[in-house]
Amino acid sequence: MSELDFLDPTIAPSIVLVRPQMGENIGAAARAMLNFGLDKMRVVNARDGWPNEKAIAMASGAGRVLDNALHVDDVSAALSDVTYSYATTARARDLTKTVFTPEGAAQDALRRMAQGQKVSFVFGPERSGLENEDLAQCNALITVPVNPDYGSLNLAQCVLLIAYEFRRQAMAHPPITQAATDVDRAGAAEMDALAQHYEERLEEAGFFWPEAKAHSMRVTLRNLWSRLELTRADVQMLHGIMRQMVRWKERGSDR
Amino acid sequence: MSELDFLDPTIAPSIVLVRPQMGENIGAAARAMLNFGLDKMRVVNARDGWPNEKAIAMASGAGRVLDNALHVDDVSAALSDVTYSYATTARARDLTKTVFTPEGAAQDALRRMAQGQKVSFVFGPERSGLENEDLAQCNALITVPVNPDYGSLNLAQCVLLIAYEFRRQAMAHPPITQAATDVDRAGAAEMDALAQHYEERLEEAGFFWPEAKAHSMRVTLRNLWSRLELTRADVQMLHGIMRQMVRWKERGSDR
Repeated sequence: MSELDFLDPTIAPSIVLVRPQMGENIGAAARAMLNFGLDKMRVVNARDGWPNEKAIAMASGAGRVLDNALHVDDVSAALSDVTYSYATTARARDLTKTVFTPEGAAQDALRRMAQGQKVSFVFGPERSGLENEDLAQCNALITVPVNPDYGSLNLAQCVLLIAYEFRRQAMAHPPITQAATDVDRAGAAEMDALAQHYEERLEEAGFFWPEAKAHSMRVTLRNLWSRLELTRADVQMLHGIMRQMVRWKERGSDR
Repeated sequence: MSELDFLDPTIAPSIVLVRPQMGENIGAAARAMLNFGLDKMRVVNARDGWPNEKAIAMASGAGRVLDNALHVDDVSAALSDVTYSYATTARARDLTKTVFTPEGAAQDALRRMAQGQKVSFVFGPERSGLENEDLAQCNALITVPVNPDYGSLNLAQCVLLIAYEFRRQAMAHPPITQAATDVDRAGAAEMDALAQHYEERLEEAGFFWPEAKAHSMRVTLRNLWSRLELTRADVQMLHGIMRQMVRWKERGSDR
């Protein structure tokens, strides 16, 4: 059984923990990751701040995962350089997104990595899990097929299963990385800027109406962007479309 | 995702914990089992006796696994009615035995169960793992392919991974991806109407400029639409976005 030496550290998947509560669980997640050779952790807005003493105490031996972890303020920042992200949820929500098993997600991730994409697995807070607003920023969902009558996976166990599946699939089907020749996939930061651009202009244009439906319309639109696999050129074109519509509007009724 | 209803309880695999030390770990193992639908536990010579209060406290919700667990004095008693057993070890020992991955063991177990055999997965004490004497009583070994530089699975995590693999394999042909729920994919005619709507409005808005590049811009935009996997609802939203931009423009410069 060989090490995942072939995994270029610059493209290894990141594990994103969103608003984790207990330091112990962050430390246990670091251990779970390292057991299966993953060491790139990003923490969004940990309840007890960062660095976290209890996480460090629990991580014994996997402390370097925490040392190198990024702590950021929101999901967008955690995913800024990521081209495809998988959000773990206890059950598929009422969102139009591909739902993967852990196995399917690992296979999909490796296929994307072979194209030069950067992927990330995203985990929610201990009790509540990810909010719909978080899910809308991720590209796909993963649900672990637990016993429908008793599903009680904790955060570190969930990280463990995903890391295990990733390693299992990576060893069975090592990604053969090709230079990203034709596909120049837009990263999450670019997608985020695009979503924001549209949201702001549409806000001005009175699109999010009536007020009572505005929030869900925004989430739906965010979710739509998250599913599109756009290149940088696509993003530029979509920015251009919106800019032009605004310019047209600003020229006034000229017909 | 269906329940493992087909698993006749009389032949469901048993999980054997050999000389477990901490009650908490026994309780956590019970939860790990039940997460993946396994509920037949056998405990060999628990350090702190049986029943174990700490195990019960930790098992919350999976208490019935402990209630129904058999406590016995040695490995032979735990395996008395078992026809094939798999012992988990951190590394393959110098023993002539088949060594399985968790995946391979689950497949082998299901094949045997289909022949009417009873199988068991056997786990050692927390720190030391199974002794060679224990291994000698089992039919095959399982090693989890952890990071060779950092393997620190605890007892319940190891049970979790085996139970997960067993369930995964047992669900006849686990879907790699499920279609997102109730996806009502837009047809080609709807995509075409959408593309045309944008093209016409953008034409009016002067988007396709300069003239020399207009054709290739049109082709690029058409190609963009063709790659998007949109639902009917997405298409309606995109029509709505464009209609609203036009309405905004037609209201004139009102700021």
